[in-house]
Amino acid sequence: MFDFLFLVFSSLRDLGMENGNGGNLQQLFQRLVAVIYDILQRLFFMVLSVGPIPNHIAFIMDGNRRYARTRKLGPGAGHKAGFSSLIRVLECCYKMGVKYVTVYAFSIDNFKRDPCEVQSIMDLMLEKIDELLREESIVNNHGIRINFFGDLKLLSKPVRMAAEKAMAETAKNTNVVLSVCVAYTSTNEIVHAVQESCKEKLARAQVISDVNAEIRNSFGGYTKPLEEEYSITLEDLERHIYSAEIPDPDILIRTSGETRLSNFLLWQTTFCYLHVLDALWPDISPWWLGWVILHYQRAKPYIDKNKAL
Amino acid sequence: MFDFLFLVFSSLRDLGMENGNGGNLQQLFQRLVAVIYDILQRLFFMVLSVGPIPNHIAFIMDGNRRYARTRKLGPGAGHKAGFSSLIRVLECCYKMGVKYVTVYAFSIDNFKRDPCEVQSIMDLMLEKIDELLREESIVNNHGIRINFFGDLKLLSKPVRMAAEKAMAETAKNTNVVLSVCVAYTSTNEIVHAVQESCKEKLARAQVISDVNAEIRNSFGGYTKPLEEEYSITLEDLERHIYSAEIPDPDILIRTSGETRLSNFLLWQTTFCYLHVLDALWPDISPWWLGWVILHYQRAKPYIDKNKAL
Repeated sequence: MFDFLFLVFSSLRDLGMENGNGGNLQQLFQRLVAVIYDILQRLFFMVLSVGPIPNHIAFIMDGNRRYARTRKLGPGAGHKAGFSSLIRVLECCYKMGVKYVTVYAFSIDNFKRDPCEVQSIMDLMLEKIDELLREESIVNNHGIRINFFGDLKLLSKPVRMAAEKAMAETAKNTNVVLSVCVAYTSTNEIVHAVQESCKEKLARAQVISDVNAEIRNSFGGYTKPLEEEYSITLEDLERHIYSAEIPDPDILIRTSGETRLSNFLLWQTTFCYLHVLDALWPDISPWWLGWVILHYQRAKPYIDKNKAL
Repeated sequence: MFDFLFLVFSSLRDLGMENGNGGNLQQLFQRLVAVIYDILQRLFFMVLSVGPIPNHIAFIMDGNRRYARTRKLGPGAGHKAGFSSLIRVLECCYKMGVKYVTVYAFSIDNFKRDPCEVQSIMDLMLEKIDELLREESIVNNHGIRINFFGDLKLLSKPVRMAAEKAMAETAKNTNVVLSVCVAYTSTNEIVHAVQESCKEKLARAQVISDVNAEIRNSFGGYTKPLEEEYSITLEDLERHIYSAEIPDPDILIRTSGETRLSNFLLWQTTFCYLHVLDALWPDISPWWLGWVILHYQRAKPYIDKNKAL
């Protein structure tokens, strides 16, 4: 049923686009189709907004290379199409009132790929970050804050600097928070949180140790063992995870039919609704996203109930 | 197609069971059906064994309570049926050559349930551990080693002692390793690994600190800062995770149609094939398991390829 509707809607849009080179009648037809498409999409979002809208959606943007291969496109074309898809999804999330979007752009393991491919992805990232910071971009139009999560030291200097610039320039935006996981794996994130917690505790333990020595020397009193002061808790780790400031995702969507988490947000997806879409990432449209949200709305009462048990 | 085959096989088995109270002819018929069922199952396993058999399968055994509710059974009946299902699955894994089976029996969050229900699950666990250790049990027949993963301090003394006894008594078995996650959550497991790593490092750091002080006092030489010696790595955490001695799961199966990981093996399921079955856990049969393995075999080449990228 959904496949049929999706086909009708997509055909309508494509029809509108294809008929853009003719005379006045064709232009009129094109506008008409665009208006119908827009109305249908608004209606769909209205239906969705009756149910609970997720606060945070995370995406594993899988299928860019397969998209390029199946369409016999040149190198890099798949990732470019993937970026356009990300902009469409962001636009759609903004319209629906989703506050947080997190995407898996490049994992630490991806550095093992062919160096030419890695370089081309990095170049594209640099180009697209610049594009996002332009005056007329979606980021400035919709007040989107950009975060980069990951071991940014692993990026080349220009990309790292561009990422830091983007974070600084958008830090005050509050409408939507887009977190881009780059040079990221979840296990690396957890180890990073552990190391930060350790540093904090070590500094504290050294101060306490000095005070304890003073107490013992001066008064011969009892002092707590260092291990007790030093113990790292769940709260310590959660304070140092990259995404400490944003709520956990409500939905994790993986495209291209693969059913793995591939080291993405393992810590944050405990009670998250996981959904696998067969479509490749560049083919993702607002209709697909709406379809997943409908499923999420159906599952939500059960998820909420089980969070407490 | 699979549903049809499943129905035929299940009907055959049920037919064999139902016809057990009649005369000689009926007994003969019952035996015949049992033999056909067994042959079909063996054939199915033979087909499966042509492809790669997973080394480790993990299960979120969801749906015991729903099973009891939908069949209007008394309290505890769902969990009893769930235990029988676990035995069937273990038997099947043993026959297929799966070496490791891990199951999510009871999470730390489950302690928040109705105290009567918690008590009844604990009583059942005690009873079933005893049953498993009997001479004629599946554990002794097939040489199964039992592990319990979790914060066992949270269990009542009798259950904790029974769990420890089971681990000790089966420690030398090597055919299949059954790991039961009880009083477990994945985040708790990670925090536990962090704390164990910290203890180890702290002991080492204190020794190094003393030696450094000696060096500085005696020779005025350079010594490495304590932070460097103290830093916790990915390897440290992996050494202290409960499942450190067993390989990561190849497949994670969740029953009853829910698509969440519910804080289970988050660290270990990075590249694991996730599969959600609509059937409730007590309804799980070897056919369902085989069906998932068939899917896994189809996805495996792609998973292997992507592990390296």
